[in-house]
Amino acid sequence: QGILERLDAGEIVIGDGGFVIALEKRGYVKAGPWTPEATVEHPEAVRQLHREFLRAGSNVLQTFTFYASEDKLENRGNYVAEKISCQKVNEAACDIAREVANEGDALVAGGVSQTPSYLSCKDKTEVKAVFRKQLDVFTKKNVDFLIAEYFEHVEEAVWAVEVLKESGKPVAATMCIGPEGDMHGLSPGQCAVQLVKAGASIVGVNCHFDPETSLETVRLMKEGLQAAKLKAHLMCQPLAFHTPDCGKQGFIDLPEFPFGLEPRIATRWDIQKYARKAYDLGIRFIGGCCGFEPYHIRAIAEELAPERGFLPEASEKHGSWGDNLSMHTKPWVRARARKEYWENLKPASGRPYCPSMSKPDGWGVTKGAKELMQQKEATTEQQLKELFQKKK
Amino acid sequence: QGILERLDAGEIVIGDGGFVIALEKRGYVKAGPWTPEATVEHPEAVRQLHREFLRAGSNVLQTFTFYASEDKLENRGNYVAEKISCQKVNEAACDIAREVANEGDALVAGGVSQTPSYLSCKDKTEVKAVFRKQLDVFTKKNVDFLIAEYFEHVEEAVWAVEVLKESGKPVAATMCIGPEGDMHGLSPGQCAVQLVKAGASIVGVNCHFDPETSLETVRLMKEGLQAAKLKAHLMCQPLAFHTPDCGKQGFIDLPEFPFGLEPRIATRWDIQKYARKAYDLGIRFIGGCCGFEPYHIRAIAEELAPERGFLPEASEKHGSWGDNLSMHTKPWVRARARKEYWENLKPASGRPYCPSMSKPDGWGVTKGAKELMQQKEATTEQQLKELFQKKK
Amino acid sequence: QGILERLDAGEIVIGDGGFVIALEKRGYVKAGPWTPEATVEHPEAVRQLHREFLRAGSNVLQTFTFYASEDKLENRGNYVAEKISCQKVNEAACDIAREVANEGDALVAGGVSQTPSYLSCKDKTEVKAVFRKQLDVFTKKNVDFLIAEYFEHVEEAVWAVEVLKESGKPVAATMCIGPEGDMHGLSPGQCAVQLVKAGASIVGVNCHFDPETSLETVRLMKEGLQAAKLKAHLMCQPLAFHTPDCGKQGFIDLPEFPFGLEPRIATRWDIQKYARKAYDLGIRFIGGCCGFEPYHIRAIAEELAPERGFLPEASEKHGSWGDNLSMHTKPWVRARARKEYWENLKPASGRPYCPSMSKPDGWGVTKGAKELMQQKEATTEQQLKELFQKKK
Amino acid sequence: QGILERLDAGEIVIGDGGFVIALEKRGYVKAGPWTPEATVEHPEAVRQLHREFLRAGSNVLQTFTFYASEDKLENRGNYVAEKISCQKVNEAACDIAREVANEGDALVAGGVSQTPSYLSCKDKTEVKAVFRKQLDVFTKKNVDFLIAEYFEHVEEAVWAVEVLKESGKPVAATMCIGPEGDMHGLSPGQCAVQLVKAGASIVGVNCHFDPETSLETVRLMKEGLQAAKLKAHLMCQPLAFHTPDCGKQGFIDLPEFPFGLEPRIATRWDIQKYARKAYDLGIRFIGGCCGFEPYHIRAIAEELAPERGFLPEASEKHGSWGDNLSMHTKPWVRARARKEYWENLKPASGRPYCPSMSKPDGWGVTKGAKELMQQKEATTEQQLKELFQKKK
Repeated sequence: QGILERLDAGEIVIGDGGFVIALEKRGYVKAGPWTPEATVEHPEAVRQLHREFLRAGSNVLQTFTFYASEDKLENRGNYVAEKISCQKVNEAACDIAREVANEGDALVAGGVSQTPSYLSCKDKTEVKAVFRKQLDVFTKKNVDFLIAEYFEHVEEAVWAVEVLKESGKPVAATMCIGPEGDMHGLSPGQCAVQLVKAGASIVGVNCHFDPETSLETVRLMKEGLQAAKLKAHLMCQPLAFHTPDCGKQGFIDLPEFPFGLEPRIATRWDIQKYARKAYDLGIRFIGGCCGFEPYHIRAIAEELAPERGFLPEASEKHGSWGDNLSMHTKPWVRARARKEYWENLKPASGRPYCPSMSKPDGWGVTKGAKELMQQKEATTEQQLKELFQKKK
Repeated sequence: QGILERLDAGEIVIGDGGFVIALEKRGYVKAGPWTPEATVEHPEAVRQLHREFLRAGSNVLQTFTFYASEDKLENRGNYVAEKISCQKVNEAACDIAREVANEGDALVAGGVSQTPSYLSCKDKTEVKAVFRKQLDVFTKKNVDFLIAEYFEHVEEAVWAVEVLKESGKPVAATMCIGPEGDMHGLSPGQCAVQLVKAGASIVGVNCHFDPETSLETVRLMKEGLQAAKLKAHLMCQPLAFHTPDCGKQGFIDLPEFPFGLEPRIATRWDIQKYARKAYDLGIRFIGGCCGFEPYHIRAIAEELAPERGFLPEASEKHGSWGDNLSMHTKPWVRARARKEYWENLKPASGRPYCPSMSKPDGWGVTKGAKELMQQKEATTEQQLKELFQKKK
Repeated sequence: QGILERLDAGEIVIGDGGFVIALEKRGYVKAGPWTPEATVEHPEAVRQLHREFLRAGSNVLQTFTFYASEDKLENRGNYVAEKISCQKVNEAACDIAREVANEGDALVAGGVSQTPSYLSCKDKTEVKAVFRKQLDVFTKKNVDFLIAEYFEHVEEAVWAVEVLKESGKPVAATMCIGPEGDMHGLSPGQCAVQLVKAGASIVGVNCHFDPETSLETVRLMKEGLQAAKLKAHLMCQPLAFHTPDCGKQGFIDLPEFPFGLEPRIATRWDIQKYARKAYDLGIRFIGGCCGFEPYHIRAIAEELAPERGFLPEASEKHGSWGDNLSMHTKPWVRARARKEYWENLKPASGRPYCPSMSKPDGWGVTKGAKELMQQKEATTEQQLKELFQKKK
Repeated sequence: QGILERLDAGEIVIGDGGFVIALEKRGYVKAGPWTPEATVEHPEAVRQLHREFLRAGSNVLQTFTFYASEDKLENRGNYVAEKISCQKVNEAACDIAREVANEGDALVAGGVSQTPSYLSCKDKTEVKAVFRKQLDVFTKKNVDFLIAEYFEHVEEAVWAVEVLKESGKPVAATMCIGPEGDMHGLSPGQCAVQLVKAGASIVGVNCHFDPETSLETVRLMKEGLQAAKLKAHLMCQPLAFHTPDCGKQGFIDLPEFPFGLEPRIATRWDIQKYARKAYDLGIRFIGGCCGFEPYHIRAIAEELAPERGFLPEASEKHGSWGDNLSMHTKPWVRARARKEYWENLKPASGRPYCPSMSKPDGWGVTKGAKELMQQKEATTEQQLKELFQKKK
């Protein structure tokens, strides 16, 4: 059954987790360019990660084609386009995803994301050509449906959806925005409306914000669609990092991005709360993005097991709410084998010299403004010193 | 070249990371029994993790035989001994480790760890028989050397070393203790002396404590050996979790163990500091235990690359101190492409409702003592209330 | 010169700090009823606190008549109205404030605040009668001007202003609201407009929120007045507690109120930042409320000394930005004698088992909703357990 | 009854709180030199603070003569010795303390503390002469007993005790040390023994560390005395700041000292715990030092009211464990009117950008060592960069 048949029937569809962060930690992807050529260089590593997500309960395996558009690949010095073409990278991604999907009951989704072409102000025709190049591979490899994801500008996302619709396959579209909306200033509700009008059957958000913030954004999308009397399925694939301190552009601007995010990683219990909240909000395509490891996806599948009626394969190696601790030799560890314990735990960071929140970097304070402020302070401080001198 | 030749020649030997925690997150191992039968059930997952550590720079691949002694396996309900024998689990572990070791320049180390037999007060003969059963497999499969690791009681560790020495292969021994010493009250120095006298050529600690605490313990071991005029190589394989708040029995007693440890995960920069400190302390077998992912091992290899003269394969996908960010589109992210930035970053937890430290569970306060205290408080509080009533 | 002459001339007027919290810590006021009869019982303590604020730079001494309306005083069990009448409390407050004001260049402001009569739905006539009773004293004692402060409902504040205007004296009005507005749902801008229309010459906020939040509220009031083309002076008297985690009703709902607020107390440097921001926003009546000690008021006076051209008397015992540390015996303490140091200091709490933020208590989750949630969870969890049992 | 009669009879004697920090915040004392001439300049402010401590339960009023030795006063530029002599400062301190003591049942204690003469290596005769000068005033003014307090070197403390003993009055001696002992390396036990041998009837610690650390130090003193078979009463007057992160020299070295300590201020409940622990440890002279405000002293008196049989006067304005909140209009604030609530509260800092602990400044890292380290890092880093370049 295809993605729309499943969603139309009211099924919960579980997405997969984040490839670039997981494969970076495993040693196959470089942070920054997030090198998707891993599909050609180290297919076994990509395959294994797909397999783990499948086992954890994913119903959709996304081809590892993030930042695999031709313009993005050619954009960087250390990628040897002669040796590994954009086409090869995308083809390998499709083959690996399909191979693993066939080991279980999963769909393969071909994915495109925002392009350097758009950001450098190329026109609609050029940008669409970039998407079409990837789509040709997806069509040839016959993926089950398509996802346009990680767009900061709804204009570009709309172009992507329009191209992907040419295939005749169902199209999902997610933006990497928060409740403040896209970079042109459109609200989440306005974005959702535009995406559905462009042909997306499923809309939502992915990446850039933590589960709580992302759910709020999808809630605003839902409201926007209702107000416009439009219908679409909702989808959410947030970070598995706590980011209450993000600004409009999300976790990229946090000082910890990308090499100091560890203390922000969500526990499985955080993700169970997210899955429940997503479900209660009416979202039926529930997955994750950067930071989501297989056990986070399993947490979604376990939280929603009562509704779905079954557990994922990987639950063989997991007890409900820690109940595999009930035979531990230490009585105080046995006492942790219950839902209430983990649900209420406030995990310590073990980092007493670190704060709990950061101030995001970014355009907030321009250099000019800062200098002005400093100048002004200098003046008043000097005057103050003089006053103190006089007083003494 | 064997492990002792390398260490005797002054080489730095890099260990591998933690299997049980990593494979639990990937869905193949169950927390609590830490089911080592994954080697039989899902060899591809175990193989892939070995491969990632090799690629990250590990010179030693430990067989995934933690908690794979016969008494431990039979100790639990859900393990079907008829179907997967202790022998099969250990053999598969050796085969997989050897297969991957042959893909690079790594040694295979067969490992034994503390047993339920010892903890339930079985005698020396019985406990040694348990170790010998695993050793038979290691001998048959011809591992390169042996590690007795994760012992809380030096007495049991000594027995393990004595058995392993029967093979004629080099033996390393690490205890999961902190600066306060073993569970019988022996200091780290005394433990080290006993282990070396029993035949261990390499001694140190693994698991239970964070890098900083573990290095302090190894320092005390070194002092003990020097005082006793004994010589041995030093080894350290700590947690990749920050645990400044641990009590004597380590991270098991922390309320976050084992399903809420995320905020404590070390960054790659924390690990570089650890590698440097370990090196400066004279430790030459430097690895990790629970929580160490491939990128943490790579951090050791990168920190000590100047001394060793080469980088690991996985550094192809990593820049020194974040320098792969130097081409990022956002200037404030580009500004993170330098050592000083990451070295001084105090990463936020993103968890403003959580503390930075926890109070460990454990025997500290017995139920009786607590009741007594409460009784006493009740009395004084009632008296106090009466005084306040009178006053008004 | 009167308050309006000063403000009209562009002068900065510095308010005083919080009496109830300071006198509670000194042992003269009871938290909860915040017993204003201290003016009769312990005039020396009230006088001393006024004197300290005067010395710190206050240009306005407010009579300590908070919660000193007749209905509030009679409302509580332990206040003996026969012995200390409402009139006596208010008269003593006026006498003490005037005595100290005459020691320097300060104005005396008589103050009224929200009443139990309003909250228990008494009508306009009755509520106004309560205010009028206090006003009679203020008129008799000839205070310099009047302040209606600490109102959660603008309707009641308007009634208070109308009564106070009967005296012919200038009237200031501050509400204890945040950016979300008053308890009837009126925005800060709407509140400001109503207060000015009722006759207030100075409007703003006091209490309930930290400086940053309070400034944002005053900014919204300013916008509202501009939109309505109304003119008034702006005033701000916030808490000296950090309360980023407050809900709509302010710090009362924080779990730490009122006996665990210590870790939230602002430093003098926090207050200097507040004073500067307030000034830049166009506020010219700048003071404090609960938590403001004399040294916090001095911090306002020092920050704005360059603009005002003089320092307060208490600056004799204070160096600019810590410069009295420049002769300390320890070089690293001497290194703290500079602005940059204190400006950038992120002071630690010394409380590693405590979080940085709290969740406010309050109506958020009703008991019914909570039970419903729990019921639902029980069901799904039981179903889940059954699934796990089946799987095993 | 004198101090020794009280202690010998098993009575609990409650000390007073910290003058220099409290008076600094009130605007009468300058941080750094901690200007004791306030007794002459602003006697009303000093008197009021004494009165508040008396009312809060203090049985001992210490003359405000901290840092009032002649050498200390002359040591600093802005003190005009011609105008206010050392003698005048000390006399005024005695007169004020006696005046207030007579309003209740309190003893007056004359106090001396460490001198610049000792720190600049003057000999025993000279240092003793400094103490004798203050003692002359105390004798003339006939204080009830004497306290030698705030000594980092037991040698100087012993000299002080020897001088004070010349008066024939009882002598107490407290050092500002932690469990690591004095600056010469003597343990707390050794210090206590020396002080008792020199003639002190009461020994203990004051200032520099938080209650928990200070109690540990007194415990070590007690052990030392027991081992030496010496008898003395125990005394504790710690900071009211949380300082788990202090090094050997205490809170002076914390980056927050002295103008950013607010988040560390103890709550009244912290102090009740301290009072109980001190009592259980056998300490009977229980007071406070820097940071102790009147309400902290009241917390000692309330915690120990059941043992003493009475409450202090200031408890008229305080309910037991917050029970004055039981009539609050908001039900969730009423719910705070119980012991369990305040005892278990983990108060938030409201400072999400601040850590919970600081690293103390100090001699730890010398400049030379630091340069060496940086040099070394530079080398290895450059080598590393070259390796990375080669690899690419």
